[in-house]
Formats: sequence, structure tokens, C-alpha cells
Amino acid sequence: MNSIARTWDSIADRHPIGRFVDACLRGASQVMLQNNPLTGLLILGAIAWGSIRTGTAAVIVGVLVALIVGTLTARLLRVSAASWRQGLFGFSPLLTGAALTTFLADRPLLWVYVVLGAAVTTVVTLALSNVLRIWGVAALTFPFVLTSWFLLMGAYQFARIGISTLSHPALPVPSERANVPLTFEFLATGMLKGVAQVFLIDDWISGVVILVALAVNSRAVAVAAILGTVVGTFVAIGLGVYGDPIGKGLWGFNAVLTAVALAVVLYRPSPAVAVYALLGTITAVCVQAALTTALTPLGIPTLTAPFVIATWLFLLPKRDFAPIAHHERVEEATAVTTARPRR
Amino acid sequence: MNSIARTWDSIADRHPIGRFVDACLRGASQVMLQNNPLTGLLILGAIAWGSIRTGTAAVIVGVLVALIVGTLTARLLRVSAASWRQGLFGFSPLLTGAALTTFLADRPLLWVYVVLGAAVTTVVTLALSNVLRIWGVAALTFPFVLTSWFLLMGAYQFARIGISTLSHPALPVPSERANVPLTFEFLATGMLKGVAQVFLIDDWISGVVILVALAVNSRAVAVAAILGTVVGTFVAIGLGVYGDPIGKGLWGFNAVLTAVALAVVLYRPSPAVAVYALLGTITAVCVQAALTTALTPLGIPTLTAPFVIATWLFLLPKRDFAPIAHHERVEEATAVTTARPRR
Amino acid sequence: MNSIARTWDSIADRHPIGRFVDACLRGASQVMLQNNPLTGLLILGAIAWGSIRTGTAAVIVGVLVALIVGTLTARLLRVSAASWRQGLFGFSPLLTGAALTTFLADRPLLWVYVVLGAAVTTVVTLALSNVLRIWGVAALTFPFVLTSWFLLMGAYQFARIGISTLSHPALPVPSERANVPLTFEFLATGMLKGVAQVFLIDDWISGVVILVALAVNSRAVAVAAILGTVVGTFVAIGLGVYGDPIGKGLWGFNAVLTAVALAVVLYRPSPAVAVYALLGTITAVCVQAALTTALTPLGIPTLTAPFVIATWLFLLPKRDFAPIAHHERVEEATAVTTARPRR
Repeated sequence: MNSIARTWDSIADRHPIGRFVDACLRGASQVMLQNNPLTGLLILGAIAWGSIRTGTAAVIVGVLVALIVGTLTARLLRVSAASWRQGLFGFSPLLTGAALTTFLADRPLLWVYVVLGAAVTTVVTLALSNVLRIWGVAALTFPFVLTSWFLLMGAYQFARIGISTLSHPALPVPSERANVPLTFEFLATGMLKGVAQVFLIDDWISGVVILVALAVNSRAVAVAAILGTVVGTFVAIGLGVYGDPIGKGLWGFNAVLTAVALAVVLYRPSPAVAVYALLGTITAVCVQAALTTALTPLGIPTLTAPFVIATWLFLLPKRDFAPIAHHERVEEATAVTTARPRR
Repeated sequence: MNSIARTWDSIADRHPIGRFVDACLRGASQVMLQNNPLTGLLILGAIAWGSIRTGTAAVIVGVLVALIVGTLTARLLRVSAASWRQGLFGFSPLLTGAALTTFLADRPLLWVYVVLGAAVTTVVTLALSNVLRIWGVAALTFPFVLTSWFLLMGAYQFARIGISTLSHPALPVPSERANVPLTFEFLATGMLKGVAQVFLIDDWISGVVILVALAVNSRAVAVAAILGTVVGTFVAIGLGVYGDPIGKGLWGFNAVLTAVALAVVLYRPSPAVAVYALLGTITAVCVQAALTTALTPLGIPTLTAPFVIATWLFLLPKRDFAPIAHHERVEEATAVTTARPRR
Repeated sequence: MNSIARTWDSIADRHPIGRFVDACLRGASQVMLQNNPLTGLLILGAIAWGSIRTGTAAVIVGVLVALIVGTLTARLLRVSAASWRQGLFGFSPLLTGAALTTFLADRPLLWVYVVLGAAVTTVVTLALSNVLRIWGVAALTFPFVLTSWFLLMGAYQFARIGISTLSHPALPVPSERANVPLTFEFLATGMLKGVAQVFLIDDWISGVVILVALAVNSRAVAVAAILGTVVGTFVAIGLGVYGDPIGKGLWGFNAVLTAVALAVVLYRPSPAVAVYALLGTITAVCVQAALTTALTPLGIPTLTAPFVIATWLFLLPKRDFAPIAHHERVEEATAVTTARPRR
């Protein structure tokens, strides 16, 4: 295993194409805040499996096209080589590719939209990273969210871009109580799908593969991802969410990302951080509910905005969270996008 | 009077519980940008009176629970002791408690929501204060607004959180002219309620008590509050707002806060500042109308967002407002939330 | 020609009223990011012509009133003399005056609204410029957009402010394909109107005069404006926008501003910048579609927000756009609003 990794690293070091493939694979792993080409490869496999199995093969094609275009655009814009090689310019375009192919109809112009969206996501990554550097926080997946929101809302005005699975714009209605029996199987597959829904995939086997992909790089991250989807799903059920959205893992993915970010990657793990991350993960669930209401009249989904908002809110007070010397980690994770760090 | 104050201060200095109670009382006064435990005590009395009298006793309970939980959370997060003792971590949670108990149904889960909301409001206070420190402006009540918006919008998705007095989500409709006779009593009680509505209380006697509470600490502030509700109400009437909302003081409270903030607390009072604050107060009324329209499809109220937005817009140009040496005051008011000031 | 310009400059230098008129004229030219009193004069002529020709003479009156009030307010607030003389406090109020008189009914209170709106736009210009200075980007026309959005949304709550040409608030509906034949005349007048729509004028001759006004100051800017309206219109048609909005130039004006800003004024022109500006201009079209959808339930137009958002997103990564030494230009363009630059 290790010797394969070493061989790969030496290939990536010497060959421009190997370096590009390596940056793309790391980009796929960066969606989960990891920096590991094997994790990325397994994740791409999970997306391919899930997208083909659920009859939406356009998703894996969109993911690959956007990952390559976004990474290439960053190269053309001469971003910092170090950030580029870590895949920090691949993960948001990848998600833009997944979202556009999931929610829009598979017509020729969709692919123009995917290429355009991937390139613009990279520009937005640079813009938001420059804005957020002042506070020492990363843009996370917000470049993906912003670009995809623009393109999905735009689709309503563009007759040649077809809308497929977006909800109809409507006024929010209070949801009603229901008596849905919760079986173990329903919950377990829902929670595993919650991991896969980070990549907009509705398949529990993909969720298992992604957990394996995480464990390859860090067992703590895999555990945080599992706890995240469990907490997210149970909090949603406890507050009165029923049926389909639970079974599809839609209340898991933002919690997964928030738990991974707060409990393991951006703060140094400790019991206090675990409690703090738990509060942050519950907050992500509430923000998801809020944004679902807010976006109902516009007919677009929350994407990973709840994760981004909750994580920013729980990351920004960090200076006051004195006893934990987490600074190195935070800086490492936010050292995005520039050759010349300004602080 | 003064000897009582001195005795209280010495109790607060020596006993941890006295210190905590003192921080909570000052927190209640900080909603009005004051730092005085007696003012806070009178305000809590006014809220208790108004909430019981209008048949919504849950509000005073929510206010007290949220004030205590928010202040405690700040302690656990080891915020700056000086800011904490001034009540700067109490006022936003207090308002979150008032809003959630006002707009949501009194079921058991409401109280989980109140405790969660108060704790999260404190985290958001730290986050926004860190963001805004760069421009030298305070977060004001925006942590309350943001957290409460999230939780109220979230309630539409959570079947076990009941909505009570929120307006139904709807598309905005231009309001029509009406011929409503304005009596002195209608206007006077409406304007006094405008003061109480800062705390979501619909009772004119509560408004009188709050004015007394302000006068205890600063007569200028009490005068600014009166002028604020008068200006807010008359500007709204002048532009064509009629009936119930005027009578309930709903066009007064944002103007009250804006007038207090701009005319007395954050700028050094002067004739020029009075004119500037007047323009700011009129702006708050227009922003309130705008946000009322913007939030109609989402079925949530503006809360104090119009005050926050108008005050930020009129505070941020301060460097260009050269002749008035207001810097000390502004800095004092924004020295929120950190042991280690960064500028 | 040059001797007239020199005479004018010497009048503006010596007489306070000449200086004021000069600042106002330059303000009219700054809407297009120019700094030239003759350009401004021609633009005001184009607005007068267009507003009278289309039967909306209130627009030119609103434009002049707002330009004067906004510029005066800046003087009273003692802004930096250098910025003031360049017209940097005139262009946003001017547009506020155009928007309010275009979309609201011509009743007496409209003019209170115009004067208030112009004064507030200047305060907002100072506020946003101070906020954005940290990132070295200008507020562009966003003070106009923000203030006008507030006042237009507010009009729905104010019965004495009448709504005239705003769209009814509605839920967004996907637009349908249509078979509209595109004649040369339809496209050419639509594209010329696209230039005039920067000032909310629906007249192609006004568009021609504005192009002449730009060429007087810089031929490159005039060319960029033409290319902007051509690209904007064709991209919109290519993505499936039909009929009236194309013919009225509504898909041209944001593209015009974005092309001028990115290709000529804020970056140093080069082939790479041209490609980058093209991507930015296409992005402006997509953002316009997105905001059109987002604002449909609120019954307000996008105004120039798509230009501002696209330009900010493509301006903020500038530090990573290494090979082009555009810094002087950017700083020049953003040296707005203060005597004491802080960076």
C-alpha cells in the first residue's frame, strides 16, 4: 500500500499529466476536507457507481468534466502551485458539475453550462478566498453553492436550459405531523445515503465506499462522518421531519460535513471541541430547515450552504476559544489560493 | 439610591452569583445600549408586566431562560471577562427568547428551541463581533436577528415546532389608502407601545416603565427613545401606513433603537449629529418597510434588522464625518467580546 | 475643442458654482466609470431626449434632482474634495433618481422619496466604500442598487407612494421556448437600447448619443460598451431569452457595464484580460437571470446588481492574475471617498 503511494507520488512529481491527475484526485477528496489522491479515487468510484445505479449517469460525467475544467482554469489563472496541487481548486467545480447535471435536463446546452459553471466556480473560489482571508477562514464549498445557485435560478429565465428535478417555486407551508414507523433498515440506509448526498448521490453503497475512502486517510474523519449523519438524521426526526427526505439522507449530508470540519479538521479534537462541534452540527440542521423555507419560493435547493454557514459561525469565534491551541490546523486548512499569504 | 447602587456593586464584585446576576441585569439594559443593572431590572419588570397582561406569560419565561443560558454559554466559551460583566452577551439571547416564545406555539419542544437558540445566539455574537471588528462597528442586535430568523424559518420544516403568530407566507401586495381617524390617545399609546415593542411587548404601560428605566441611566437616552418612536410613527403615517400596526407601536421600535444609537450612544451629540440621526431614523423606517415586503413570502417578521441595517449604514461613514471627535465613544461601544483587541 | 475644455476647467477651478456643476457633470459620466464633464453633459442630454421621447419626462427631472442632492449631501458630509470633484458622489444618486421616477407613480410624495433617496444613497456610498476598501475594490453602483431596492420594496407598504411599472410579485415560472424571428433592425435597436438602459432609458437614439459621449473620453470604452451589449444580447438569445426584453435592451446594460469595467477600466487591457472580461460578461448575464428569478416574488427589478456582482467576483481574484500589472489602475478607480487612504 505504502509503496504504491510512494510510486504514485514520484509519478505525480515528475510528469505534468501525473501532477494534473493527482491534483484532480486530491480535489475529489477535498470535498470532504481531505488531501489524499486514493481517497479521491475511491470517492470518484462511489459517485460513478451511485450515479449509474440511480439512472443518472450524467452526474459522473458532469463531475469529471467540471473537476478537470475547474482545475485547468485555476492553472490558466496562475494560482499558487502549492494550493493547486492540494486539490483546493477542484472540489467546488466538481460539486457544481454534480448539481447542474442532477437538477437540469440533459440537453446539449447543459454541457456548455457545466463547462462555464466549472470555470466560473474557480474564479469565485479565488474571489471568496481573498475576501475571507481577512478573518482566517476558508471559503469551504461556498464557491460551489453561489455559482450553482446563480446557474440554477438563471435556468428559470433561459428556455433552452431545461429544469428537471428542481422543486416548483411555491410559498412555504408549515409541515404537518405524521406517524411514520422508523425501521432499523430505513434509518441505516438513510444515514449511509446521508454520506453519499454530500456528492448529491442517493445510494447507500456509495455512502459505504465514501466512508472507506475517508478511513483510508483518517479513521477519525470517518468516525466524525458517521456521527454527523447519525446526529443530523436524529435531530431532524426529533424536531418533526418525516418520510422521504430522511430515507434519502437529505438531513445527513450537511451534518456530515459540519461534524468533519468542526470536530476533526479545523479544531484540534478534544472533549470540549466535541461538545462545541455537536452544537454546531445541530445548528447546521436548523440552518438547513431555515434555508429550505427561504428557498422554497425560488425553487432551488440549499445545497451545502447550511454546512458552510454553521461552520463559519462556529469557526469565527475561535480566537475566544482560548484553551485549545488549534491555530496551526486552522491556518493549514485555510492556506488556500495564494502564493503570497497576507497575514 | 446611590448607596444602594454601591452596596450592589460590592456584592457583584465579591460573590460569583452576584456577579452573574449583575451581568444578566446589565444584559437586559444592553438591548437599549445601556450598561446599568437597575435599568435592566426595570426593563425585566416591564417585560414581565406586559407579557402577563397581554396573556403571553411564556414571553417573560423565555426572556429569563434565554438571558441566563446565553450569559452562561459565554462564560463556558471563556469570553473576555470585561465584556461579559457589561452584559454584552446577554442582550441578544434575551431577545431570541422573546421572539421564539412570541411567534411559536408553547409546546415542550419550544423550550428546547429556546435553550438551543440562546446558546447559539452567543456563538453568533462572537462570530459577528469578530467579523465586524475590522470596521470598528458593533454587531448590535444582529446575532439575535440572524439566529431567530433561522429558527423561525426552520419551524416551517419541523412539524413538532408549532407556529403561532407568524404571518402566513404570501406574495406582497401594494397596501391601499384608507381613511383612519388618528386620535391623540391612539397615537400616544401607539408610540409608547413602540418603546415596549423593542422587547416584542404590546403594552403601553411597559413602554412607560422602560422609559423610566432609561431615564435612570441617562435622560438623553430616554429623550432620544421618545423622539425615535414619535418620528418613526409619524414618518410611517406620512408615507401611508394605517391602522393596527401604528396602534401596536410596530413602526416605533426600530426608530427608537436607531435614534438612541445614532443620536446619543455611538456619536457625540451635536446639532449636526441630530440631523444625521434624524435621516438615519427615517431610513430605518424605509428599511423596515422594505424588509417587511422582502420577508412576506417567507412568513417571518423583520425583528430589529431595520435598526441594525440603518445604524450600520450611518455608522460606517464615520471617518468622513470629520468635525465630530466621536472616536472614543464609538470604540467604547464596539469594544465587544474580546480580551485581545486586534486593532 | 481643447480650448473649450481648458476654459471650462479654469471656470471650474475658480468659481464654487462652476466647481459644483463640474462635479455633477463628471458624476453623470462616472455611471460609465468615466471622469469627463463633456461626457457627462452628453449623457444628461441623452437621458433628457430619451425620457421625453418615451413620455416619461419625470425621469430626467428625477435624475437632475438626485444628482444635485446627492452631490450636495456629500459636500455637507465633508467628504474628500478630490473624490468629490471627480463626480464619485454623483453617479449613484443619479441612478436612484432614474429608478424611483421610472418605477413609481408621479405623485407629490415621489419627490420627497427622490430627495431622501439621493441623500441616503450618498451615505450608503460612504458606508460601502469604507467596507470595501479593505479588499481594494470600489462600491461601483451598489449604493444605488441597495438604496433603490429598499425604497422600491418599501413602496409596497406605503399607500401614499404609488407603484407604476414594477412587475407584480409572483412565483417564478420556467420560461418557454418560442420561435421569434430575429431581424437585423430588431437586434441593432435592441443592442443600442442596451447602452441607454444603463440609465433606464428605452430609446436607441439615446444609446447612440451615449456611445458618442463615451468616445469623446475614450474610444476603447466606447468599443467595450458596444461589444458588451452585443455579447450580452447574443448570450441571452443563445440561452433562450426571447422577444420584448431583447428588443428593449434589457439584456444589454449589465453586460455593457461589466465589459467596460473589466476589459478597459479596472484591468490593463491585454488579450488575456479580454478573454477574462468575456467570461465575466457572460457571468453577468447568468447573474442577471438568477436575480430576475430571485426578485420575482418581491416585484422589484435587478437594476445593475448583476454588473456589480460579476465585476466584484472577477475583480477580487486580481492578486492571482499575476502577469498583468494592473495595480495602478485598480487603485485609481477605487480611491473613492476618503482623504485619508488607510492601506
